[in-house]
Amino acid sequence: MKISELGEFGLIDRLAQAFAEAGRPDSLLVGIGDDTAAWRASGVQLITTDTLIEGTHFSLRYWSWRDLGWNSLAVNVSDVAAMGGTPEQALLTLALPPETAVADLDELTAGLVEAGREYGTAIVGGDIVACDTLMVTVALTGRAAVDADGEPLLMTRDGARVGDVIAVTGYLGDSAGGLRLLLGEQETDPEAAEYLKRAHLRHRPALAVGRTAARLGVRAAIDVSDGLLQDLGHVCHASGLGAEVRAAGVPMSPALVRAFPGQALALACSGGEDYQLLLLAPGHTIQQVQRASKGPVSIIGEMVADPEHRVRLLDATGKELSLPAAPAGGGSASGGGWDHLREAPWRR
Amino acid sequence: MKISELGEFGLIDRLAQAFAEAGRPDSLLVGIGDDTAAWRASGVQLITTDTLIEGTHFSLRYWSWRDLGWNSLAVNVSDVAAMGGTPEQALLTLALPPETAVADLDELTAGLVEAGREYGTAIVGGDIVACDTLMVTVALTGRAAVDADGEPLLMTRDGARVGDVIAVTGYLGDSAGGLRLLLGEQETDPEAAEYLKRAHLRHRPALAVGRTAARLGVRAAIDVSDGLLQDLGHVCHASGLGAEVRAAGVPMSPALVRAFPGQALALACSGGEDYQLLLLAPGHTIQQVQRASKGPVSIIGEMVADPEHRVRLLDATGKELSLPAAPAGGGSASGGGWDHLREAPWRR
Repeated sequence: MKISELGEFGLIDRLAQAFAEAGRPDSLLVGIGDDTAAWRASGVQLITTDTLIEGTHFSLRYWSWRDLGWNSLAVNVSDVAAMGGTPEQALLTLALPPETAVADLDELTAGLVEAGREYGTAIVGGDIVACDTLMVTVALTGRAAVDADGEPLLMTRDGARVGDVIAVTGYLGDSAGGLRLLLGEQETDPEAAEYLKRAHLRHRPALAVGRTAARLGVRAAIDVSDGLLQDLGHVCHASGLGAEVRAAGVPMSPALVRAFPGQALALACSGGEDYQLLLLAPGHTIQQVQRASKGPVSIIGEMVADPEHRVRLLDATGKELSLPAAPAGGGSASGGGWDHLREAPWRR
Repeated sequence: MKISELGEFGLIDRLAQAFAEAGRPDSLLVGIGDDTAAWRASGVQLITTDTLIEGTHFSLRYWSWRDLGWNSLAVNVSDVAAMGGTPEQALLTLALPPETAVADLDELTAGLVEAGREYGTAIVGGDIVACDTLMVTVALTGRAAVDADGEPLLMTRDGARVGDVIAVTGYLGDSAGGLRLLLGEQETDPEAAEYLKRAHLRHRPALAVGRTAARLGVRAAIDVSDGLLQDLGHVCHASGLGAEVRAAGVPMSPALVRAFPGQALALACSGGEDYQLLLLAPGHTIQQVQRASKGPVSIIGEMVADPEHRVRLLDATGKELSLPAAPAGGGSASGGGWDHLREAPWRR
């Protein structure tokens, strides 16, 4: 059955039922089905929104509808993680081609419910419109971490200081590597392929380490969505500083290095869609985060005074590296990462 | 200049500057330019989202870009008004064709800033994506009205009771009438034409009367976006009741009656995009709202027990009326109003 046969209100009923069955937060007073959602709040609230659009951010040739559902929530959770917060209420806006199959929509819903359970959030409202282009927008609220006096512990892009250590969670480049394998641009051993493809198909925001970092005193962070060097550039711009990154310190998975021996560093620096966190703080604070975190937190460089706000990638001798362009859309060290109005990787 | 020449980050900078110049709320801690926005909150928070898509909800043949900016915020303010709340933070998601002119975008921004000033809200974040279809999504938070003990005073769709009076703010059908004039389907005197077209071009949510109603004890409401009978049907469905509406009570402007002598009632009942409020409450409560409101609040019927949850339109003798189909997309009494997945009025 096509969604056009269900109609707008039939579709809303179907979604409302699926999200209601997934449970609702205790704080929620009014959920799907009214003019607004309503919930009891206190302290400092966070809000963010991100849109995934077919042909720009993903292709259903590789992502399943369930992946799409999961990721559309996960990319927003990553933004809340980068502020050190905890996700709360989510709104879902679907722009759907009328010929969309109801079964596909049910898979999308299931992916959203799965991610909601994983990250402790729920869909409490939204909107549905017909559109030739498939597009999923999630708006997500959250609450900020607070200190003993109830004051917010926020991590912002403009909070970095000269001498702050640059740290990054997890591994970088896996998602970009997985995309290239899915595109058939490269082959590798089955184990590495499985791991890298999975990294592209299911984003895993660093929610727990974000909260830990905020609580331990990290005051500057950003999530890596456009690529390490580009996102670090946003921090430099906002904080009025430069950054020096040691290439040898950039954390890469064994699978990525094995699958892309000559290109792993470029993928890790500019590939994007990593959804790891960059943390900027004094060295002793980062060490505390390292001790308190389950996963790896790697020190990759430091923030420096630089009126030009440059991000410089350095080799072991301190010489600046120029990255080779990554295959299929990765950029160079100076101009790497994505600009969604200029580039549409799936459309080339 | 086209927005594709500015690029994503140039565009974000341009929007951030325009919205920053418009001022920021005192409660805001982090605005545009970081991973999430952050603000101090307390009590009960509201959140809603609505998308306007070219070809379905509007056409730039009639709306200016400034109208689009204004209305994209106003339709969300209307949802907060229907809960009796006060708007707070807004997120803006733009899906833009790459050939969009920067000058048009500036007009869109100006319309958003105007509406933000009028309704006391500001754009604090968002997202921009390239898309062949022009689409504007706003997500809007608000705070609920509270009683002396800080308990929320919410107006919900399921709050209506048997015997509640059905009241509506302002006039109905003006926007639908204005659309038909803009489409050239009808002509009328210049004064009526100006008034009706204006009603279609600039939505004016009933924010003040919504807050007044919540404070005075109204516990059920909805805003009229899809058409009186359809939206009243949502209340009936949610409250498990039926509704009887006296046709003679439906408030219509002199201009609408003059311009559409044979169709005014159909436009008022099923035209949609009125952004007035339907209020459901005991008669004495509605009388208090009438006394406290600057604009008209008309009593048009009452809620009745009806296991089939019907909305019945009655003539002066109590006989059920069957509405003639409104021109250009209005519906009948039984099936009136819009279903956005089935109908796309601009595409016919």
